Amino acid sequence: MYKLVLIRHGQSTWNQENLFTGWTDVELTERGIREGIEAGQRLKEAGFDFRYSYTSFLKRAIKTLNYVLEEMDLMWIPVEKTWRLNEKHYGDLQGMNKVEMVEKFGEEQVLLWRRSYDVRPPAIPLDDPRHPAHDPRYENLKEDEAKPGTEALIDTVERIVPYWESDIKEKLKTYKEVLVAAHGNSLRGIIKHLKGISDQDIVSLNLPTGIPYVFEFDANFNILNDYFLADEETLKKLMEEVANQIKK
Amino acid sequence: MYKLVLIRHGQSTWNQENLFTGWTDVELTERGIREGIEAGQRLKEAGFDFRYSYTSFLKRAIKTLNYVLEEMDLMWIPVEKTWRLNEKHYGDLQGMNKVEMVEKFGEEQVLLWRRSYDVRPPAIPLDDPRHPAHDPRYENLKEDEAKPGTEALIDTVERIVPYWESDIKEKLKTYKEVLVAAHGNSLRGIIKHLKGISDQDIVSLNLPTGIPYVFEFDANFNILNDYFLADEETLKKLMEEVANQIKK
Repeated sequence: MYKLVLIRHGQSTWNQENLFTGWTDVELTERGIREGIEAGQRLKEAGFDFRYSYTSFLKRAIKTLNYVLEEMDLMWIPVEKTWRLNEKHYGDLQGMNKVEMVEKFGEEQVLLWRRSYDVRPPAIPLDDPRHPAHDPRYENLKEDEAKPGTEALIDTVERIVPYWESDIKEKLKTYKEVLVAAHGNSLRGIIKHLKGISDQDIVSLNLPTGIPYVFEFDANFNILNDYFLADEETLKKLMEEVANQIKK
Repeated sequence: MYKLVLIRHGQSTWNQENLFTGWTDVELTERGIREGIEAGQRLKEAGFDFRYSYTSFLKRAIKTLNYVLEEMDLMWIPVEKTWRLNEKHYGDLQGMNKVEMVEKFGEEQVLLWRRSYDVRPPAIPLDDPRHPAHDPRYENLKEDEAKPGTEALIDTVERIVPYWESDIKEKLKTYKEVLVAAHGNSLRGIIKHLKGISDQDIVSLNLPTGIPYVFEFDANFNILNDYFLADEETLKKLMEEVANQIKK
């Protein structure tokens, strides 16, 4: 049996300030750090024993992973970082306040940008210093790999699914237990693919920060079981928080 | 030009308690954490910009690396971990107090164990739970790779030099600037090889904790320059500390 655990990074400073973050490389808050540590404790108590791990190029995910691995006494396992696990790029909305954007563009438009499957926010222009083309971490991407100035969820899904097939799945076969610490939308992409969730339904799946989401597979990668590693009450509270981000 | 930076992990709890550590996976102290952070600041100020990094399977080195990369805003670069960069295995001395060992076996014998090139401390027996054969992090080593119950410096040198040739050197060619966060004796092994230091002289090279040691190479890997990234006074003080560890 293979075990895959997905974990969304703990609260970041821009989550806390309610700003669109995307590829902006912001810090964890104190709460975010605590969420990482608690996730590690929970996984350890539940007997998980990872032999390989993945994360994005963004430090809120990398640090969450580091806190988890430290709590599990697994800092020695391989950590592979990839831009393909990055959050959805939020284009020109990055750094903008979610409530202010609702006031400016209306709730319907902001909901489209946040939760539609294929509507992209306005792009960051290529000559803007915030564009990924100017960031050294993306300079060695192959020509056919995107350096997007904006993304809809479909773009995020399309960059993570091939990586699941070619890399993460292969490592699961070798290492049996694999941990992926990433972001709301890149994890949605994996979950959509694994569970065959429709383009319409995936957008309303809310992933709480710092709660491990466990998949158990048989040898043919049929899902035997999938569940959040948390009690019902904790889970409900966290999911409501995510859903309420654009309310005043 | 290629730049290689070697850094010995910050102070660990067993450094502080003056115990032989070897492969025991002990924590950094507060001072050790500060040393990692300061090394990162120093490297950033000096304009280093690594694109690849290495560390051992031991968390005092891994965490030192993490602190350095965090200060440099380089958490996204690859971190490769290898048992070949581990500290020299100190055999049955691991966990013993250095001063008490001097009282028991005499200064000459302890100096031999600590600083001779080829005298091994007494080995941990294979059926002892502390033996690396029982630690999951070493279970996937190839058959021809050692799982030692003890090592002399010659053994540490013989496991790190092939890795320098096959891995670190190749990554330097690709990435130009590479950082290695490891341990006193695995770094001695690299330095011995690079500078052609004799078996006799290498044992008296003391590496201070947390001070970056910089090598600059030309395209043919001739050394253009090598130096510690610290002022003379700081360096002198730290070197004396290391040399004085077996004095009461």
